[in-house]
Amino acid sequence: MTYRAFFLTSAALFAASAAASPASAEEGMWTFDNFPAERMEREFGWAPDQAWLDDVRASAVRLTGGCSASFVSPNGLILTNHHCVASCVYENSTGDNDLLARGFVADRRDRELKCAGQQAEVVTGITDVTAQVKQAIGTATGEALTRARDARIAEIEAAGCPDTATTRCQVVALFGGGQYKLYTYRKYSDVRLAWAPEDRAATFGGDPDNFNFPRYSLDASFLRAYENGQPVNTPEFLRWNPRAPVEGEATFVVGNPGSTSRLNTLGQIAFEREVRLPITLATLSELRGRLIQAMSQSEEREREGRDLLGGIENSLKVQIGRTRALNDPAFTARLESAEADLIARSAANPAVGDPWAQVDDAVTAYRALYLPARFTSPSGNLYGYARALVMAAQERAKPNAERLPGYTDSALPLLEKRLLDERPVYPWLDALQMEWSLSKAREYLGADDADTRLLLGRESPEMLAERLVGNTRLADPAFRRALWEGGLAAVEASSDPLIQYALRLVPRQRELDRLIDEEYSGPLTAAGAQLADARFAAYGDTLYPDATFTLRISYGKVQGWEERGQQVPIATTLGGTFDRATGNEPFDLAPAFAAKEAQIDKAITYDFVTTNDIIGGNSGSPVVDRAGTVIGAAFDGNIHSLGGNYGYDPLLNRTVAVSAAAVQEALETIYPAPALVAELNGGQARRN
Amino acid sequence: MTYRAFFLTSAALFAASAAASPASAEEGMWTFDNFPAERMEREFGWAPDQAWLDDVRASAVRLTGGCSASFVSPNGLILTNHHCVASCVYENSTGDNDLLARGFVADRRDRELKCAGQQAEVVTGITDVTAQVKQAIGTATGEALTRARDARIAEIEAAGCPDTATTRCQVVALFGGGQYKLYTYRKYSDVRLAWAPEDRAATFGGDPDNFNFPRYSLDASFLRAYENGQPVNTPEFLRWNPRAPVEGEATFVVGNPGSTSRLNTLGQIAFEREVRLPITLATLSELRGRLIQAMSQSEEREREGRDLLGGIENSLKVQIGRTRALNDPAFTARLESAEADLIARSAANPAVGDPWAQVDDAVTAYRALYLPARFTSPSGNLYGYARALVMAAQERAKPNAERLPGYTDSALPLLEKRLLDERPVYPWLDALQMEWSLSKAREYLGADDADTRLLLGRESPEMLAERLVGNTRLADPAFRRALWEGGLAAVEASSDPLIQYALRLVPRQRELDRLIDEEYSGPLTAAGAQLADARFAAYGDTLYPDATFTLRISYGKVQGWEERGQQVPIATTLGGTFDRATGNEPFDLAPAFAAKEAQIDKAITYDFVTTNDIIGGNSGSPVVDRAGTVIGAAFDGNIHSLGGNYGYDPLLNRTVAVSAAAVQEALETIYPAPALVAELNGGQARRN
Repeated sequence: MTYRAFFLTSAALFAASAAASPASAEEGMWTFDNFPAERMEREFGWAPDQAWLDDVRASAVRLTGGCSASFVSPNGLILTNHHCVASCVYENSTGDNDLLARGFVADRRDRELKCAGQQAEVVTGITDVTAQVKQAIGTATGEALTRARDARIAEIEAAGCPDTATTRCQVVALFGGGQYKLYTYRKYSDVRLAWAPEDRAATFGGDPDNFNFPRYSLDASFLRAYENGQPVNTPEFLRWNPRAPVEGEATFVVGNPGSTSRLNTLGQIAFEREVRLPITLATLSELRGRLIQAMSQSEEREREGRDLLGGIENSLKVQIGRTRALNDPAFTARLESAEADLIARSAANPAVGDPWAQVDDAVTAYRALYLPARFTSPSGNLYGYARALVMAAQERAKPNAERLPGYTDSALPLLEKRLLDERPVYPWLDALQMEWSLSKAREYLGADDADTRLLLGRESPEMLAERLVGNTRLADPAFRRALWEGGLAAVEASSDPLIQYALRLVPRQRELDRLIDEEYSGPLTAAGAQLADARFAAYGDTLYPDATFTLRISYGKVQGWEERGQQVPIATTLGGTFDRATGNEPFDLAPAFAAKEAQIDKAITYDFVTTNDIIGGNSGSPVVDRAGTVIGAAFDGNIHSLGGNYGYDPLLNRTVAVSAAAVQEALETIYPAPALVAELNGGQARRN
Repeated sequence: MTYRAFFLTSAALFAASAAASPASAEEGMWTFDNFPAERMEREFGWAPDQAWLDDVRASAVRLTGGCSASFVSPNGLILTNHHCVASCVYENSTGDNDLLARGFVADRRDRELKCAGQQAEVVTGITDVTAQVKQAIGTATGEALTRARDARIAEIEAAGCPDTATTRCQVVALFGGGQYKLYTYRKYSDVRLAWAPEDRAATFGGDPDNFNFPRYSLDASFLRAYENGQPVNTPEFLRWNPRAPVEGEATFVVGNPGSTSRLNTLGQIAFEREVRLPITLATLSELRGRLIQAMSQSEEREREGRDLLGGIENSLKVQIGRTRALNDPAFTARLESAEADLIARSAANPAVGDPWAQVDDAVTAYRALYLPARFTSPSGNLYGYARALVMAAQERAKPNAERLPGYTDSALPLLEKRLLDERPVYPWLDALQMEWSLSKAREYLGADDADTRLLLGRESPEMLAERLVGNTRLADPAFRRALWEGGLAAVEASSDPLIQYALRLVPRQRELDRLIDEEYSGPLTAAGAQLADARFAAYGDTLYPDATFTLRISYGKVQGWEERGQQVPIATTLGGTFDRATGNEPFDLAPAFAAKEAQIDKAITYDFVTTNDIIGGNSGSPVVDRAGTVIGAAFDGNIHSLGGNYGYDPLLNRTVAVSAAAVQEALETIYPAPALVAELNGGQARRN
C-alpha cells in the first residue's frame, strides 16, 4: 500500500530543486512531451511512437486522493489500488456491514457507492508558460518573487479554465523553477466504488510485507466516473489484458509520482538527514505507538483507526528507508559525485554563478523556521477543517491574483468538495492526533517558547485536545457548509472552539509562511532556475524533472534482482498465498481465499516486479505492455526503492504490481463480478 | 531525572574505546588516582590535596540501580536523587497508600522501607592489574582474546574478594583496554528508604523540563544502609551544608558516570549516527507512544507505568540529543580534528600501526551482527528473569574462570539479589513491552528471517506475548527461587512457558555473543590497547578514561551559560516554582507545595547549574565545595550536555543540581522530618 502520495500538499508542487546528472539505465519519470524514445530504442530495440504515447496519456487518470489510475472500459470504469479506495470503502460501511472486511461488489451500476472527497482527472493539454511566469518574476527576490509568480499563475489558471465545473487548470514548476507548464484537466467529481476485495486480501502480510517482495497482495479495485448521475463515456481507455508478464518484456508505468528530491543540492540533502528525518522518525513512531495501543482497546476502534494506521506505517517505512539511504556512504557518494560533476561542467559557464551557495544560505535560514513551521499547525481532520475554513474565508475576500496558491479560483472547487463532502469523523482519533501533535510541539519548541504558549496557553495538550474536539461542531457537514457559505463574517463570529482556535493560530502560520517565502522558497526558486539552466547547458535537454504529482511515464522491464546472493524471482502465484499463510494476523488468509481455495487457479501470476522508476503517488498506475494493454496495477516498490526520493539504482529498485491475471481470477472466482468481467473483456481492442 | 544510568549493562564496562586529544577547560571525569591537581591549581589558584581526595572518596556511594550517592551522616544516611528511588517508593505503595504521590517520611528508623534490588557500594581500594590481564591476553585475537581476558579477570576478582557477603570485586577496562584496574568495594545489600518528597515535587515540569534549565525540581531523597537489621556505622561522611551556591565558586561532582564514547574512533561514531541512533529513535518512540496510550486507560495503569515511562522518555531524550550532536557539523568537526591530530602525532611512531583501520574492520563486521543481536532478546522484566535463570543455570555449571563475565563468583551475589528480591510485576506492562519488541524484531529483521521465525514461530507478536506473559509463574519470587536453587536440572525440566522460550532463544543469543566477541569485541580490545598507547605517547598521562560506572571526580564551577543571546542564570529559587505552575500537568504544583506556600521561604536557592562534566550514572552525586561539604545533589544536565557522550563543550555543557538549602527547607517545612534535620546538621564537621 505504498505508493499513494500521503501527506502531499500543494507546496510540493513548487518544491525547489536543482540540477542532477543525466538519467542512466531505466531511471526516469518522464513527461509525455519529452519521452526519451531514442534512448529506449537503443536499449530495447523498440520505443513507442507519438500516437502510442497520446493514446495512453488520454486513458491515464489522476485521483485527487493522492493516487493514479486508468480508464479500462468505454463506460468510465477505473482501475486503481485497493489502498487508494480503502477510506471510501470504510466510510460506506455501517455498523453491521463492514465493507472493508467483507469487500464490495456492486451487483448493479446503480448500487455503486459514492466516494467522498474523491475526484478523477484526465490531462487534456500541457502548455509551456515558462516565459509568462519568468517575465512576471522579473528581477524580484524573496517573498516578492513568490508573490509575483503566484499571481501570474493564478491568472494563467483562471484564463485557461473558465469552466471550473468540468475542468481544472494547474500550473506546475518543473526543474525547480526552470520550466512552468499549464496542465489542463477534464475532471469528474462524482467517483463511485464498483468493486473491492476483502481488506485482508489487499493487505495480506500487513506492515511487515509492505515494501517487500515476494508479495501476495490483491491491491486492486475498480471505481467508476459519473456525471449527472450517469457513468461517463470514455472512448479512450486501456485494453484489459489478464495475462502473465514475461521476464524481460518491456513495461510502462503511467501515473503521477508525487514528489522526489533528486535534483536537490547536497545542502538540501544534509538538511534532510540532519534535521527533518530524525524528527520525523521519532514523532511519527510515537504516533504509531499511540494509535496501535488505542486501537487494541476495542474492535470498533480497531476498525476506525485502520486506515490512518496504514497511512502512518507506510509513511514511516518510507522515512526509515530514506534515512537508511542517506546514511549509506555508497548511496551519498553517488549524490556527491553528481553534484561535483555539474559544478565542474559549469565552471567555464559564467552565466551559472554559484546557485549552490544560494541554496545553502536559504537552507540555513530555513533551519531557524523549520520547527515552528512544522509544529504550529495541530494534526487531525477537525482542525484541518477549521484551518481551511478560516484560511479560505480570509483568502476569498481578496482578488484572485492576490490569494495564496491553494485558494485561487482554480483551486477552490476541489477544496470546497473536500470540506463539504460528508464523511465520518471519529472524535477519539482526532483527539489522539491533536494531543500527540501538541505534545510534540511542546517537546521540540520547548515549554517556554512563545509558539508553545500560543498553542497551549496554560492548558496541557491532553486537556486542550479534549476540550476542542469534545465541543466543536465541525464534524457536521451542514455546520461546515454554513461557515463556508457565510464567509469571513460567519467564521469570525463563530463561537465554535476549533474555529476560534484556528483564528488564533492562523496569523502565526501566515507569518511563518511569509518568512519562509522570503528567506527560503523565494531564494530557492531563483537558484533553482539557475541550476536548471546549468543542467541543460551541461547535459542537453534529455532530462526528466523531479516528480510533482503530474502525469509521467516510466519505461522498464519485468525483472527480479539479487538479494544477499539470492535471485529474487519476477513474480509470485496465487497459490503462494496459501503457503505463506500462518493463520495469524497479518498472515491470515482472507476468508474468501480460504473458502474458495479449491476453485482458485493457483498457478496464476499474483504480484510481479519491474524495473520501472516510480514513487508515492504512482499507486494504482496501470502497468502497460508494448501493445498498450494493461497487464497490472503498480502498488508498491521494494525495500530498495525507498531511497528513490533521492536517486534510482537500476540494480535494486523495483516496482511491485498486482497482475491483471490475478484480478481477473478474483473477479471470476473469489469475489465474483460477472458484469465487470464482461465489461473489461468486451471492450474493443485498440491495438494488438 | 536524567542522570541515572538507564539500561546500563555489564557490557558497558568493557566497551572498547580509542584515543582522544587531551581534556580542555573543565572537561574530564577523572579517576581518583589521577586527579589533575596541577591543571586545576593553574585555573582556580587552588586544588585539593590527597587527604581531601581520600576523605571525599571514602564517603562516595554507588547504587547498583544505576545511580550515585554519598553518606551524609555517621549512621549510614545516604543522599541521592528522588528518581533513583522512585521504583522503591512505588513498590512500597499499597492500593490505598500511593507513596509515590504522597511522598514518604519515616517517623522512626524502624519504619524505613526496604528497597528491593538496591545495593550500596563504597570503593575501598583500586589496584592496577593491567600487567596481569595483558599477560593473559598475550597474542590472542578475536574470541580467544576475550576468553583469556575474562578468565583472568574472574580469577583476579575471586582472589580479591573471598568474602562475597560484604565485599565486591570488579575489574574494569579503562582506555578501551589500555589499563585494567581492580576496584574493591564494601557493599551494603540492605538499603532502606528514609525520606522522599511527593513525586510531583521531584518531577515538576515532567518530560518537557527534563534536561532543561531554569528548573524547579526537588529531585532528592534519603536512603540508609543497614546490616544485620541495624543502621551501619559510617564514620566517613560528607558534612551537610545547606547554603546558597556562589557564582564562580569551585564545585566537585563525585560519582559514577555510566558510559561515554569520547575515545571512539570516527568509524565507531559513524556507526552510531548511521545505524544505532536512527533505529533507537524510531523503536523507542513507538514504545513511548504505546505506553502513554495504555496508561491513559486507567489511573491504576497510570501509576504502574509511570516509572517505566519516565525511564523511556529520559532515555529517548538522551538519544535525540546524541542524534542532534552527531548531525551538527560543528560538533563532528571537533571529533574529526581530534582524530586527525592523534593520527598526525602517531605517524612517526611505528609502534602504533593502524588501529583506526582495525576498528573500521571490526565495525564493518558488527554491522552484520547488530540487528539480530539487538532484536533476539525480547523486552520485559519477566523475560529478563527467564533469561537470567537460564543463563545462570548454564553458566554456574562451569568453573568460575570459564563463565561469562556476568556470571562469575564475584558477579553472582548481586544477580541473585536482583532475581530473588520480591518486587511487583504488572503483566500488562510486560505484555506491552514484549509485543512491542517482537513486532520491532519482525520489522527490522524481516518476516522471513530465520531469527524472526525463531522468535515467533507461526504466532503473531500479540498472541505470543499474551500467551507467555499470561501463563508464566515467574512473577512469584518463590518460583524464581526454586528455579535458581534447582539449577540447570530444574530449569531444563520446567514447563513454564517463558523458561521454555528462553531455553529456545538463549543458544542463538550465545552464538551471536560469540560472533561479536570474535569479530568485534576482541579486535576492538586489541585496537583499543594500541590506541591507548598512541594516546599516552602523544599527550602524556594527564588523561581521563571513558566513563565505566566507576568512581570519578569532576571539578568545575557554579556558572550559567549564554542561550540565543540571553544569559541563563546560575540558579532558581523555591518561589519560582509558584510562578511557573500553570495548574495543569506536568506544571501542576505538588500538593504540599500548594498547602505550605505561606510558610516556604521563597528566596531559597532551588536548583543550580555548574560546569562539571557528568553523564548518566552521576545521578545523585554530591556537589561538594572547596571545604568538602555537600551543597547539592546533581540530578541532570542541560540540553547541550546530551552530546556529552561524545564530547564536552565548556561554553554550553552544564550539570543541574538541587541545592542542599532547598532540601533542608523541604525537610523543615514541606515534608517535615525533624529527626533527619538533626541528624544532618548534628554531624561533626570534618573540615572548615
